Amino acid sequence: MTAQPVVSIVGAGPGDPELLTRRAWQRLRTAEAVFYDGLVPTAIVRAARDAKRTSVARLAGPKAITDAEVAAAVIASAKSGKRTVRLKAGDPFVLGRGWDEVAAFSSAGVSCEVVPGLSSVTAAPLLAGIPLTVRGMAPGFLAVSGHASATFEPVLSGLRPGAITVVVLMGMQQREALRDLLLSQGWDRDTPAAVIIDASRPQQRRWLGPLRDLSDNSLSAPGRPGVIVIGPAVACAIRIPHVNR
Amino acid sequence: MTAQPVVSIVGAGPGDPELLTRRAWQRLRTAEAVFYDGLVPTAIVRAARDAKRTSVARLAGPKAITDAEVAAAVIASAKSGKRTVRLKAGDPFVLGRGWDEVAAFSSAGVSCEVVPGLSSVTAAPLLAGIPLTVRGMAPGFLAVSGHASATFEPVLSGLRPGAITVVVLMGMQQREALRDLLLSQGWDRDTPAAVIIDASRPQQRRWLGPLRDLSDNSLSAPGRPGVIVIGPAVACAIRIPHVNR
Repeated sequence: MTAQPVVSIVGAGPGDPELLTRRAWQRLRTAEAVFYDGLVPTAIVRAARDAKRTSVARLAGPKAITDAEVAAAVIASAKSGKRTVRLKAGDPFVLGRGWDEVAAFSSAGVSCEVVPGLSSVTAAPLLAGIPLTVRGMAPGFLAVSGHASATFEPVLSGLRPGAITVVVLMGMQQREALRDLLLSQGWDRDTPAAVIIDASRPQQRRWLGPLRDLSDNSLSAPGRPGVIVIGPAVACAIRIPHVNR
Repeated sequence: MTAQPVVSIVGAGPGDPELLTRRAWQRLRTAEAVFYDGLVPTAIVRAARDAKRTSVARLAGPKAITDAEVAAAVIASAKSGKRTVRLKAGDPFVLGRGWDEVAAFSSAGVSCEVVPGLSSVTAAPLLAGIPLTVRGMAPGFLAVSGHASATFEPVLSGLRPGAITVVVLMGMQQREALRDLLLSQGWDRDTPAAVIIDASRPQQRRWLGPLRDLSDNSLSAPGRPGVIVIGPAVACAIRIPHVNR
């Protein structure tokens, strides 16, 4: 009896290879085929030194690879008996499309091993010295995709202003809509806010300011991953010592 | 000039030593002193093979160690020149008291290096086959401490029912209050819910059921860490293959 084909869906974390989990590192080291997203840094992809490495970056235009084509390539690799890794930025199941892929693999008779990764939702603020939760100030946090106003509007409407820390991924283009929505919901114009760009990478940058300035043009970093953090806890931001950078 | 003393605040992740980050592992391997919380498993603490290892579990009763005593011991160790690690379960700054400790260290002139860890908020559901976000169904998630009703009530009130996945840590004793609050806010009695106990450990268990059954007594696991997940995305839960366990 042949063993069922298996794909390891591995979270690459925020970008620094030292922030991979030990299991993720081991899976890359022993992989024979790796399919990786565009946002995963080369230094991490190269950890899979013996593998055939295939980028499945979602390019715009005629060269675009569809989700179905990615799934088909991964499935074919696993069924050919190769130790196959699907490598995704951050955590594979936080605000990615991980679950769509699991469903596609499963219906093709391919099992999934999931190896969690550090999500930028928690790692980016931490590495920039910004707490998500502070006792007596923020008892939790909310993470939402900022891809489109229609996505975050139903989630953020009704939320009690300042009750929790709001973290927005993929929302750099929607900062104005985000700010306007929160202000219309009664959030204070001076609520502390932050933006972390290129978290965990050598060029990491952070911006701190009031919510009213969130759509400041000087924050622009086209094409770079940015994490937005809004809430009273951001006021506790500290300077991070160089050992962390 | 003497270098400023530094403490590494390290996240131990959900429990499985293979889910430590590579940097966390390295810091433990080279530590000379480690101060660890009660929830960190022995297998992880032992990675600090050359260190003096001190448990700072918050015991109840006359043997209780206060936060101030913990901070004083860590500060003294760092100031004596020892490579000192403060090891905390999960991620050090997600629903822990990490920020209080950073503040205490800083005011004593001790710098902090922060090494993020996998938070149970994201890792426990993933390891149990439960997605936090699903395209078109749950565009984000909210994590809150379930320690007391007064903590989560202001956060969850007003939230649009079913708009997002709700994750509650440290809420096993408050399941009834949590269920009643959400029902009173208009959440459907049949909203899919899950509880994951001992996530990432060999004895990991998961319960799936409707929100109305969340305070089912058969779920009881006194003293064990439990993660509660509520929202439409829980309906996408899959069976996790044995390779993951």
